[in-house]
Amino acid sequence: MSLLYEGKAKRIFSTGETDVLRVEYKDEVTAGNGAKKDFIEGKGRLNNQITSRIFNFIKSQGVDSHFIEQTSETEQLVKSVDIIPLEVVVRNIAAGSITKRLGFEKGHEFEAPLVEFFYKNDDLNDPLITDDHIKLLHLANDEDIATLKESAKEINTILVELMDKMELRLVDFKIEFGRTTDGQIILADEISPDTCRIWDKHSDTNFDKDVYREDTGSIIETYQTFLNKLEAL
Amino acid sequence: MSLLYEGKAKRIFSTGETDVLRVEYKDEVTAGNGAKKDFIEGKGRLNNQITSRIFNFIKSQGVDSHFIEQTSETEQLVKSVDIIPLEVVVRNIAAGSITKRLGFEKGHEFEAPLVEFFYKNDDLNDPLITDDHIKLLHLANDEDIATLKESAKEINTILVELMDKMELRLVDFKIEFGRTTDGQIILADEISPDTCRIWDKHSDTNFDKDVYREDTGSIIETYQTFLNKLEAL
Repeated sequence: MSLLYEGKAKRIFSTGETDVLRVEYKDEVTAGNGAKKDFIEGKGRLNNQITSRIFNFIKSQGVDSHFIEQTSETEQLVKSVDIIPLEVVVRNIAAGSITKRLGFEKGHEFEAPLVEFFYKNDDLNDPLITDDHIKLLHLANDEDIATLKESAKEINTILVELMDKMELRLVDFKIEFGRTTDGQIILADEISPDTCRIWDKHSDTNFDKDVYREDTGSIIETYQTFLNKLEAL
Repeated sequence: MSLLYEGKAKRIFSTGETDVLRVEYKDEVTAGNGAKKDFIEGKGRLNNQITSRIFNFIKSQGVDSHFIEQTSETEQLVKSVDIIPLEVVVRNIAAGSITKRLGFEKGHEFEAPLVEFFYKNDDLNDPLITDDHIKLLHLANDEDIATLKESAKEINTILVELMDKMELRLVDFKIEFGRTTDGQIILADEISPDTCRIWDKHSDTNFDKDVYREDTGSIIETYQTFLNKLEAL
């Protein structure tokens, strides 16, 4: 049961079982690649509960992930995978970095969901990369890249429908994928208001980490309201 | 014969003839998107002569461009095209921005030539963009993007061979393309030491704008030596 890895928001432990890990969600929140950082009690519990519920829902829609089961308020069991060092971002509406980078107005609805890849590398500040960069860096081959894009769009469709039922708009989200020991590429990491940008359908309220990034509200209240909406479905 | 456009290094004039423009190369040199800027006598002449010679050579190898003919030391006639606002960069060896952006060591030889697209937009600082961004911004469709990539690689092959005969290594270069009135996509702009990174095969000497960017030599002597090598072929 030793600690294998500690990230910004999670600790990963080995278990007695091969290929099964225990994830503990921490009460820490960061933004801007760690530039802003706080300890906020209850945050780990909320992210674990939300991610578990969303991964269960996605599974019910036929999409496999590393998620096995939630085992306590702040813990879950997952399959051990080799994380592909790519942040896969899907955007339905322009917000955040893409408004500055490419000049899209905040709120601009894309004609089709846009998939972007960022190279997970803290030293390089997670730069945007193209398919050709991914191949040159030997992160994935053509077939893998096609799988990642297709899977990201499929997950987007599922999440957009889910949020729609909650009277919310899924603006964008970031996911990560990993390879199982038998070479399958599956969804990993988490899906929560930490990794999504979610707007209310009828007001300017948002249900995501932007309330922390932009100091516009309580992260605990915001995430709890999101969880309540999810549980009420 | 009115001035239609003045850029950092060139002035474009209309001519009596429809679809034909006169380009005048200026004695100005800039780097870092205009952050560094100087007037250097003779630079316009050298860039015009080098570009004319290279475009003629490329034509002899079967690749069409907007270039018609050199008409004076600093002037050339070109076909009028709608410039596609993309900087198409081809890299054979890592140098410049890609070493900082993706962590490749300077001098790293890529397994295959890498084509990158940058969105020509001064306000946004010419950001790197992906094929999907290009389509969302309506800059080009799938077929056009394939044409741009294929054409950029073909021009790279021709230039690599040319430079090889001059005992030089073509590290990377930037080209632009335009659409003719009948919708054909052809090579435009210029190809010169302003837009290429060129290293000597046997020493650390470089024959490109890096001597100006990095203050390591005389830009006039450097470009003149390059032109002499080109004329000696």
